Amino acid sequence: MKGYSYPLSPDGRASLVPPPPWHYSGDFLIVEYRTNPDGVIALLPPELEPADDPGAVAAIFADWQSCSDDFHEIVDPIQCQYREFFLVIGGKYKGQPVSRCAYIWVDKDFAMFRGYIQGFPKKLGSIHITRVFPCGKATPKIAPGGRFGATCTANDRQIARAVVTLRQISKEGPKVNAPPMYNTRHFPAASGLRPDVFELVRAGGYDREFSECWEGDAELRLYDDTIEDLQAIAPKEIIKGYRFSFGYSVDGVTVVAQHDKEMLLR
Amino acid sequence: MKGYSYPLSPDGRASLVPPPPWHYSGDFLIVEYRTNPDGVIALLPPELEPADDPGAVAAIFADWQSCSDDFHEIVDPIQCQYREFFLVIGGKYKGQPVSRCAYIWVDKDFAMFRGYIQGFPKKLGSIHITRVFPCGKATPKIAPGGRFGATCTANDRQIARAVVTLRQISKEGPKVNAPPMYNTRHFPAASGLRPDVFELVRAGGYDREFSECWEGDAELRLYDDTIEDLQAIAPKEIIKGYRFSFGYSVDGVTVVAQHDKEMLLR
Amino acid sequence: MKGYSYPLSPDGRASLVPPPPWHYSGDFLIVEYRTNPDGVIALLPPELEPADDPGAVAAIFADWQSCSDDFHEIVDPIQCQYREFFLVIGGKYKGQPVSRCAYIWVDKDFAMFRGYIQGFPKKLGSIHITRVFPCGKATPKIAPGGRFGATCTANDRQIARAVVTLRQISKEGPKVNAPPMYNTRHFPAASGLRPDVFELVRAGGYDREFSECWEGDAELRLYDDTIEDLQAIAPKEIIKGYRFSFGYSVDGVTVVAQHDKEMLLR
Amino acid sequence: MKGYSYPLSPDGRASLVPPPPWHYSGDFLIVEYRTNPDGVIALLPPELEPADDPGAVAAIFADWQSCSDDFHEIVDPIQCQYREFFLVIGGKYKGQPVSRCAYIWVDKDFAMFRGYIQGFPKKLGSIHITRVFPCGKATPKIAPGGRFGATCTANDRQIARAVVTLRQISKEGPKVNAPPMYNTRHFPAASGLRPDVFELVRAGGYDREFSECWEGDAELRLYDDTIEDLQAIAPKEIIKGYRFSFGYSVDGVTVVAQHDKEMLLR
Repeated sequence: MKGYSYPLSPDGRASLVPPPPWHYSGDFLIVEYRTNPDGVIALLPPELEPADDPGAVAAIFADWQSCSDDFHEIVDPIQCQYREFFLVIGGKYKGQPVSRCAYIWVDKDFAMFRGYIQGFPKKLGSIHITRVFPCGKATPKIAPGGRFGATCTANDRQIARAVVTLRQISKEGPKVNAPPMYNTRHFPAASGLRPDVFELVRAGGYDREFSECWEGDAELRLYDDTIEDLQAIAPKEIIKGYRFSFGYSVDGVTVVAQHDKEMLLR
Repeated sequence: MKGYSYPLSPDGRASLVPPPPWHYSGDFLIVEYRTNPDGVIALLPPELEPADDPGAVAAIFADWQSCSDDFHEIVDPIQCQYREFFLVIGGKYKGQPVSRCAYIWVDKDFAMFRGYIQGFPKKLGSIHITRVFPCGKATPKIAPGGRFGATCTANDRQIARAVVTLRQISKEGPKVNAPPMYNTRHFPAASGLRPDVFELVRAGGYDREFSECWEGDAELRLYDDTIEDLQAIAPKEIIKGYRFSFGYSVDGVTVVAQHDKEMLLR
Repeated sequence: MKGYSYPLSPDGRASLVPPPPWHYSGDFLIVEYRTNPDGVIALLPPELEPADDPGAVAAIFADWQSCSDDFHEIVDPIQCQYREFFLVIGGKYKGQPVSRCAYIWVDKDFAMFRGYIQGFPKKLGSIHITRVFPCGKATPKIAPGGRFGATCTANDRQIARAVVTLRQISKEGPKVNAPPMYNTRHFPAASGLRPDVFELVRAGGYDREFSECWEGDAELRLYDDTIEDLQAIAPKEIIKGYRFSFGYSVDGVTVVAQHDKEMLLR
Repeated sequence: MKGYSYPLSPDGRASLVPPPPWHYSGDFLIVEYRTNPDGVIALLPPELEPADDPGAVAAIFADWQSCSDDFHEIVDPIQCQYREFFLVIGGKYKGQPVSRCAYIWVDKDFAMFRGYIQGFPKKLGSIHITRVFPCGKATPKIAPGGRFGATCTANDRQIARAVVTLRQISKEGPKVNAPPMYNTRHFPAASGLRPDVFELVRAGGYDREFSECWEGDAELRLYDDTIEDLQAIAPKEIIKGYRFSFGYSVDGVTVVAQHDKEMLLR
């Protein structure tokens, strides 16, 4: 019985997620906005303090290919392509700015489970993001006036809809998700409410590569009939929209602290 | 930050899986068959010995509704309905017959994660199973000659196809999955190959309710172009097909032993 | 080159829809409501006059199995199972009450195209409807207090959500969809806006079989962010909810009149 | 009641397919191969004669964005993105080389119906095609050695799997699908087997734009457990693989001949 993840099998090749490192290539559409800071602060674990801009949130749509270290998934694209939508908030850890994924939806099982390993609280969802094509008229251009849309729906409930209109190359790029990401790894026990795994982790990554980043005007709607309380962090003020490409590699995350498991029993 | 499972949230209601107990109602289509015993034995963890009929396997298609203890999912059926296909093998634990889920595919995220908690190594798949309707001609009857089909496809690769033709009420019912199920809970660490959780668990359940069980002739094909090595446990001899309904409730699983985590490092 | 429908092939077996007759078995959940009569009347073709209860609408969720005359789809259930949601309005044709399908969403291609042949203006959607199971607690009972829910989402936009709570056996059953259904068959031309097919048809069917019909309280929401203008026929007053099973067979529809093709050029 | 296609509605905006022109931007992966010429010839209508290379077939995977003339779909990407897989054969019409779509699968309803209007015999399927990303390692490069894969599955049955390894810029590009496409428009009648629409059409298009075309080695498998008889046109010899981008606009198709409707009654 071998393997890095479920299902374990005689030769280990059946694993839903192959062992790290994992390589990622993606296109990003981000809308930064401000909401009621109380809604954000309520999503922070006790180890994290509020950010300097405590109500700032990044709504991130990402269109990915990823693979393991032998690249075999690249020629079986159903195993490498996925899209996700996540809401990233800010905070501080020991006085330093951090980011944190509050909610996230993704459209493939391997990406869902690989997310659990890294502390992303993923659910399945359906995500669509406008793409750029080299030919024809049915594509925006990466140029002033280029318009990109994105939607996320989960459990057949609408989660989010965004539109970004490019205006210029961004000098600074998006801010909310720029600091290191501090997520929580969590795995329930065989019985009872006290989890087996409950720890604060810092995401890493190496061989980061960025395209030029474009910025512009943005619209964002978070819907009201969702299982998650998204109205508590609904947009009150749009900051800006961004569009860029990004690639990196990941070899696990670093445990920073053990959360207090009693917290989940109250 | 509260909740039984990802994502944790201020009031805990965003959890993908609400806390147990969980209630289940389902229809089952099973094909029992024999394969090369070596293929089965290779799927057992060291704590389990081969079964008396060591090559026997149950290919199980299940069509479920499930809910948590306040039943709120029942009126939002996308949250309660799912289908799954699993391959169950036999073994012995301390001399007593047990069953074990070797591979399993399911079509919803909540059922996937709830499976992980109970030691089911679930991947996403697309499962279809013939149903019985009260009116019209487009339905089999639960009677001699009634024909039921089922298919499972995952990652756009065909996994299994079965047909069962009912002949009579079954006195004994299916055998392979009758003993208590001993699965393995597994959750990777933040980094490295040594998992954080790796333990043998015994499934339980209470308030079990069965319909009459019908049995009959069966066909089963496991496909050859799969990520999992299903040819190692492909049917050599069909035993019998079964069709019945079943309901029960579950309040977690019982830890029986800790597996040796070194096993996964070799 | 043979076949009843696309794709034509040397032996005709590749057709998306096999030739009629088609057999159907289904479970129904219906919410009858009243809206602004103007919204309904705007959906009638010139050949139909307003109904006596001109603002009455039936929101119908149906959970089907269907097959062609050799029943081969029954053992390949992905080819026979589908769910749909449709909005049925009333009218009169030559003074007699009729019904008409204004909008409809379905989750399979064969049902979509078979609908076109019969004059149902189908789009793809995702539809979920609470089911009844024989065992366990995760199922409503067909008895006073039994609660059934249903949802429809299309293009990742929420269309409808309903809940029906059974109170008693219904003496009269649903009314809006009871009269013969008069739909419009429409198929565009190779070029230009004047369609090749544009005709009023009357649905038929034979060997109709009904279960007992239950009725009760109902809730219905039609959503506001849809491609279709559903707010024009949004519920103002709920009449009643219904739940029953139904089966029948269909051998095409009857052409009643040719619509004026000029109507679509204006 | 207005609109270009189903469903007709008071303002016409509910149509599944908006009126032409339609604009398209796409990426293509093609494997050309030779099969038994009899298998190809059996797929030609009487109006078309065999091609000079009568067993040549193009297996085409296309990854599209498309929109109508106001471009509104571009910012709601679920309405503009789709993927398809089609098998294109060759023939001659009045002595001139033509191409023809024998089978095609697509993953969206609007593209399915727009295909019917143009004579493409579309079914729903699930199609995946390796993409190129600007950053990171999880992407092939458009350069010698770049590897692209693609799969198609429909009705949960595997249809096709291909891999293309780029070797060089192609001087001539793909040949089978280069001549004008002659498809058949077909729409069944309200009852009976004689269709209402059954005509040979020539596809057009304008504002065509091509990227550089790359060619290389290719593998292709057509599967054996399909509803369509794909084994009759299974690859016997691989010619070459191609990868390029393409865009164009379409304003309907041109009717070339009426097929003999009696042909479908035999």
